[in-house]
Amino acid sequence: MKKYRVAVVGATGMVGRTFLKVLEEKNLPVSEYVLFASSRSAGKKLSFMGSEYTVQELNKHSFDSGFDIALFSAGGGTSKEFAPIAAEKGCVVIDNSSQWRMHEDVPLVVPEVNPEDIMKHKGIIANPNCSTIQAVVALKPLNDKYNIKRIVYSTYQAVSGAGVKGYQDLENGAKAFVNGTDYELQKFPYPIFSNCLPHIDVFQDDGYTKEEQKMIDETRKILHDDSLLITATTVRVPVFNSHSESINVEFYNDYDLDNLKAVLKNAPGVVLMDDPAHEVYPMATISTGHDEVYVGRVRRDTSAESAVNLWVVADNIRKGAASNAVQIAEKLIAYWEK
Amino acid sequence: MKKYRVAVVGATGMVGRTFLKVLEEKNLPVSEYVLFASSRSAGKKLSFMGSEYTVQELNKHSFDSGFDIALFSAGGGTSKEFAPIAAEKGCVVIDNSSQWRMHEDVPLVVPEVNPEDIMKHKGIIANPNCSTIQAVVALKPLNDKYNIKRIVYSTYQAVSGAGVKGYQDLENGAKAFVNGTDYELQKFPYPIFSNCLPHIDVFQDDGYTKEEQKMIDETRKILHDDSLLITATTVRVPVFNSHSESINVEFYNDYDLDNLKAVLKNAPGVVLMDDPAHEVYPMATISTGHDEVYVGRVRRDTSAESAVNLWVVADNIRKGAASNAVQIAEKLIAYWEK
Repeated sequence: MKKYRVAVVGATGMVGRTFLKVLEEKNLPVSEYVLFASSRSAGKKLSFMGSEYTVQELNKHSFDSGFDIALFSAGGGTSKEFAPIAAEKGCVVIDNSSQWRMHEDVPLVVPEVNPEDIMKHKGIIANPNCSTIQAVVALKPLNDKYNIKRIVYSTYQAVSGAGVKGYQDLENGAKAFVNGTDYELQKFPYPIFSNCLPHIDVFQDDGYTKEEQKMIDETRKILHDDSLLITATTVRVPVFNSHSESINVEFYNDYDLDNLKAVLKNAPGVVLMDDPAHEVYPMATISTGHDEVYVGRVRRDTSAESAVNLWVVADNIRKGAASNAVQIAEKLIAYWEK
Repeated sequence: MKKYRVAVVGATGMVGRTFLKVLEEKNLPVSEYVLFASSRSAGKKLSFMGSEYTVQELNKHSFDSGFDIALFSAGGGTSKEFAPIAAEKGCVVIDNSSQWRMHEDVPLVVPEVNPEDIMKHKGIIANPNCSTIQAVVALKPLNDKYNIKRIVYSTYQAVSGAGVKGYQDLENGAKAFVNGTDYELQKFPYPIFSNCLPHIDVFQDDGYTKEEQKMIDETRKILHDDSLLITATTVRVPVFNSHSESINVEFYNDYDLDNLKAVLKNAPGVVLMDDPAHEVYPMATISTGHDEVYVGRVRRDTSAESAVNLWVVADNIRKGAASNAVQIAEKLIAYWEK
């Protein structure tokens, strides 16, 4: 089996470090990893694969030496500038930013959902938004069987999705509560400790946030159905890691509840965790550290003709970002090896 | 003006103490307050209205001395046993438990929504569930104008709704996180610090919790429309006080978004707080300590014919319990004075 050269761009951020952890677990056929970051973080030493790696400064010649795959998690600006440069040198970029997701030449991929889109790439494959990934893993098997008409998303999103500074705002808020000290917010416009902020990413003119618009647009693109009716309210909650989602779904087809649960139980990447009599349901504390999407509270919604309520929880840094991107890399290599 | 004798039953609990605080603020025409609690709390001294009150033990003769109004917040068992006794003695019970809410002879009242139901009482008036109260304050004016067809509720509920022990679970969880100590859960089946529990009150056979069923049943009863299509997912979040709610509403009538916002702005008990361009939206930190229901993130939902998304936040112990009950008492006295 061929071995591949892989670049990790944005290796020092919260998602970047989880990329490294997931890569260590997965054992891809890689001959060499090179870690890149902005000039600010270049020169840092990172422990990875049992060795010490020095982070290289990302510049327009970074990809001249020939990479097969580059995993980008360095923000939209970096992806906008450097992903096309990498692609032009023959490297396939798997990009975790929102920069290329809705571009028509860029496949937007969740490996359990639309792996067939991977090989349509023209040098860039986009990793979807964290809140979309976990939703579509649960919704895809239901859409295949029952034909989704409409989705109402309400999210409960962890601070880790806002990076290290978001994490610090919750940590410092907890410390201030316990110790009676003051602190300054690093990331959020208001305290997140003991509070819910109905505000993720920036507001658009129509009153929706970009996060809400991403869930709408990306769900349609990944499920290949622009006619899907979708709305979303995305909310930051005082949870360190793992997003929870209350999802109300209306289908065109009738369903039997036991069959629907069986569909979820057998779906790739899904763990059905639904035994209310024994207080078994998905929670952030359960999903954190895992790559599966946990689904529970599956109930018939009698307020619409053929509708169901779901509670969907996943680790937003792993399945919502790093693990999904590495899974795309695995699939890509598997296609190359065919 | 006549002065009334008022009993406060369950004065020592979290909601009971807020009852006392709200009564101090409201200055009702009361000749005498008597505070009652179970034998466990009887004898306690409480500071109230500038004096020290000794809490009396509640028993079947407690109402023999003649009360005009009794504010009950002592749990369903106490209300089941003692509210009929009080009512039989000519006292009007305003009951904060779920015990009598769906009883056909018991009005379920939110003063801004259905004050006309108060005088239909036969001795007991029920205070709705906290999560329902704030929802219907926002929905009533919209229902009057646009005729609600369907409601999808997803809630973000504070631990104070689970009483002192619920509060302690979050407090102890925060302390354990900061200090690295261990703690034992007092109330919830799982840690609530940095976690969301899709589980409030007990589970029914159909997979819904009683809390979810309450929101469905009570919304219909208060809005006088059993044909309303409603579903709910109720979730406990790590917030000390004030519930937030993501509410998706479909109307039979068309609406204009500016007009709909004006309807909310002019609605009794509602504060429209909706200026996303300036990061103005309702949050638990804003509503706590106030009696108003804060509504924001008002957006057209294009996924259904005439639908809107709302974000509704209120103090669940004040408007969701104590203040609403005291407002019922105020209205009751006003009817008597007519």
